[in-house]
Formats: sequence, structure tokens, C-alpha cells
Amino acid sequence: MPMERIAILGTGLIGSSVGMALRQQGFTGVIFGWDRDPAQAAIALSLGAITTVAEDPLSAVQQSDLILLSGPVFSILEWLEQLANILRPEQLITDVGSVKQALCQRAQQHYNLPDKPGFLPGHPMAGKEVGGATNADGELFRGAVWLFTECTDQHQMSQEARAHADEWRTWVQKFGSRVLDLDPERHDVLCAWVSHLPQFVSTTLSALLEDKFPHDEALRLIGGRALREMTRLGASPYSMWRDIAHTNTEAVAASLFALEQRLAHLRENLRTPELRAEFELANRFRLENTKKP
Amino acid sequence: MPMERIAILGTGLIGSSVGMALRQQGFTGVIFGWDRDPAQAAIALSLGAITTVAEDPLSAVQQSDLILLSGPVFSILEWLEQLANILRPEQLITDVGSVKQALCQRAQQHYNLPDKPGFLPGHPMAGKEVGGATNADGELFRGAVWLFTECTDQHQMSQEARAHADEWRTWVQKFGSRVLDLDPERHDVLCAWVSHLPQFVSTTLSALLEDKFPHDEALRLIGGRALREMTRLGASPYSMWRDIAHTNTEAVAASLFALEQRLAHLRENLRTPELRAEFELANRFRLENTKKP
Repeated sequence: MPMERIAILGTGLIGSSVGMALRQQGFTGVIFGWDRDPAQAAIALSLGAITTVAEDPLSAVQQSDLILLSGPVFSILEWLEQLANILRPEQLITDVGSVKQALCQRAQQHYNLPDKPGFLPGHPMAGKEVGGATNADGELFRGAVWLFTECTDQHQMSQEARAHADEWRTWVQKFGSRVLDLDPERHDVLCAWVSHLPQFVSTTLSALLEDKFPHDEALRLIGGRALREMTRLGASPYSMWRDIAHTNTEAVAASLFALEQRLAHLRENLRTPELRAEFELANRFRLENTKKP
Repeated sequence: MPMERIAILGTGLIGSSVGMALRQQGFTGVIFGWDRDPAQAAIALSLGAITTVAEDPLSAVQQSDLILLSGPVFSILEWLEQLANILRPEQLITDVGSVKQALCQRAQQHYNLPDKPGFLPGHPMAGKEVGGATNADGELFRGAVWLFTECTDQHQMSQEARAHADEWRTWVQKFGSRVLDLDPERHDVLCAWVSHLPQFVSTTLSALLEDKFPHDEALRLIGGRALREMTRLGASPYSMWRDIAHTNTEAVAASLFALEQRLAHLRENLRTPELRAEFELANRFRLENTKKP
């Protein structure tokens, strides 16, 4: 039985992009959409990302085969708690949260157990530095990796929820994403390095330049592509990254500390052959990274 | 009298891009090209970036109205010394070097004095993370800022050299660049912040990831646009950046130290309201930066 109704809670950039991708790839069922900002749900509707604005999210959730939680990590945590006793075992929750251990721990007692609803933790490695439904794009996930971090007890999902989970993985592949399974701990460490660290570095670099050169026209004029790229993520919203900083603190702090140490090392070696070694390592990283399929 | 002959010493990415831009914008004179790697000059010729490969660079230089020094900073320093006693007062040297104080100091005794050739220090804020004539592009400078750092004694150029300097500024504008004049000290400080710091941060981040996760397929797979952008400059060649690290050491070290301190501050405040302040400053920097004309 393919899924007929999907509820998207949080119709911002990612939630609305998922809705658009679903419909572009041929999903013909109902897509309920809810956002705590009604304007976002209205935009999602006008874009065709959802078919119905859910005035009452709990009622929409109860009618849906799949519930997608799409918002900052804390909002996903809250929904996981709130929905635990409302959903039936044949229903499946999935999410797009950037941190997974905290979510898996919170879900442990309430999901993927006999008579409990299913939970499939997910995380598309795609996004933009600007949020909101207006920036949604049904092609956002093409070429990206979509991570899943099923917990070891996930086989206790009901057959129906498991079927929804399998179908969801198929939709994700139709969106153009490559599916990759990781355990939640490893997910959080890897994401600290490849996603959270780059974000916090870009924020720090942007904040430093704003602080040091608040009204310097020349500085802003002469910055080329290098500066634009290295500070693009500086536009990212605090609201989303606060939750990541709070829920993946240890791994993020470790990666930041390692970078600080490494920058100091480079600074102390601007005129020694050690600089060449750093450039050669960096060149090798890029070479391997551009080879990626 | 418009310029009729130009010599480009160093026909890599920037030198060849300048040659292509000149010809695309209607320069019909001779463009001599020389590179210490003859293959680069041959590619430049095949691209139409130069009209003549200069087998003997000194002879080509002596026949030219304008000599463009295009290469790493140390190579420009060497050419400035070598050409000082060969050129006539009506001839003009300009360059594209990334650091300007060291060049202006070296030029001080030999250029822009009575009976000495002219020197117009220049720096286009454009480039790519991959060098070489094969990557040259006559549109590379469109939308970029082209900095000039004339020294205070520049008015002692001969009338002919001054005319060449004025004409060169016009060509640069035809390339689509916006001309901005800075004094050399301020140039080096600003470039440390908007160009050299982003480069060394990207190199350090790339080297750190390569060192810590040398063969981690998952890490390379899940990195999205954020990681690609933040490490793109990791591909930049040591050969060019060594010279910048050596000739702008103080300003670069100061900017690196400031960033280290700021990263530590953010790391210590991942769970405090201070994180919001950093995001707000960063957001403001990006807002001002995207407003730029």
C-alpha cells in the first residue's frame, strides 16, 4: 500500500523543498502543511509544495501515513514528544534534523517498539544560507547525500511503518539524493566536521570583519569570489544554528579547537617549509574531494 | 600615442587572461608573451592571449611600451630589479602582484624618478584556485576591482610613461573592472583580511580534514556545498602563496591571530547568548556585502 497522505510540519526552506520534490517526482496524494508561521504555510501552498494547509496540525498528523518533521532540532525534539502518544503503530515519523544522537535518545522510549509508531531519523545534506518557503526548490536535493541513522532497535517498527520507511527511502532517491546509513554518533561527529565547523568558521570570519571594519567601503569592494564564498554562510540564521550548537556541543567544540590549533601552527610557520606541507595536504584533500562521484 | 606593444612576463592564469581581455576589448598591437615554462607561453599563443612568443624576454621588453609582470610576488621583485637598468624613461612597468608594499619599496630607487622608467603597481582582485594558461578567461576581470597603489613620488614618471599609465587604467576599465586607488600599506592590510586570511583559513581547514580523515569515504560523500565552498581555495598552489606569506607576514599573522581568538570565543560560547551576537554581526556583514554595487 503506497503512502497516500503526508504531513509536513515546518514548511520553511527544507520542508517546502521536500513537498515540491515529492510532487515533481509524481506523488499524487495529499500533502498537509503546517508551520508555526502561517505565512510560510501559505507560501508553501502557493508554490504547490503542499496540497492543504493544516489549520490543526494534530488532526492532519493523525490522518497521515508519514509525518515529516522539518525545522530546527529543538522543534523536532518537541514534536517527537508531543506526537508519541497520538500516533498509531502503522504511522511513521521521519525528520530532516542536523543532529541525530539527541533525537534518537529522545525517541528511544516512544518509537520503534511494539505498539509504538515508527521513527526513521533522516538528514538531507542540502540547504541554503537563506531560509523560508520562498527559497524552496524541488531540485534542492539532487546530487546531495541523504543520511539515515536508524537505531539498532529499528527492526521493531510495525510492518506498515517499515513499508513507509522503505517507500520514503525510494522517494529520497527519486529526489536525486544518494542514501547513506550511519549510526547516530558517527553522524554527529562527521557533521560537526563537514557541516557545523564550516558554518561556525564562516560566521566567525564574517563577524570578525564586521567588527573590525564596520563601515569600510574599500574592504567590501575589493573582496572577490574568495571572500564571498568564505562568508556566504555568515548569512545563516541563528535560530537554526543555536539548536545545533546546543545539541552537538562536544563534537563542534572539538573541531573548533583543532582548527584553532592548526591556524596557530600555520601562523607560526608563514616563513618556514611547514607552510608547503599544509598546502600539499590541502591540495590532496581537494583532489580527493573533486574526484567524488 | 596609444600603446602599440605590450610584453607580458608570466603567461599563466592572470597574464594570459589579461592578454585575452586586451584583444577582446580591441587591442590590435603586438603582445609579446614569455613564461619560464615555455609550455605556458605556447598555450597563451594558441588561445590568442599573446601574438608572439618572446624567445628572448629582454629583447621583447625593450621593444614594448608597457611591460606587465604577472607571476608570484618574488618573481615580480626579481624582474623589477633586472629591468631597472634596461628600460627607458618612456616605458612603463605594471604588475598584478598580491602584495604591494614590498614591491613599492624595491621600486623606490629605480622607478618613477627623472630618467628612470615608470612603475604603476596594480592588483586585480580576481583569480581562480587553479592556475595556468589553460584556465585563462578574458572575462575574468569583469565585475572585479582592480587596485592601484601609486607611490607618492609617482608624478615623477615621464610624460610618456604617465600616458601609458592612464591608458592602462582605461584598458582595465574596458576589461569590466572597477579601478580603486589605495596606498600600499593600506592595500596590504586590507588584502590580508579579505584575501589572504580567507585563503589560509581554507588551506588550514582542508589540511585538517585531510590529516584527520585521510581515507574516509563517508566524510567526502556527505560534504555539501558548504564544505565545497569553504575548502575550494584549498586547491590553491603553494608556489604563489609562499610569496604572499613571506612578503605580507605581519598583516597576515595579525589577521590569523584575531580569527583564532574569535573562534575560541565562539567555542566557549556555543551555549550562551553570545552565540546570537556573533550570528547577528555575521548576518550584518553579509547584508552589507550583498548590497555592494
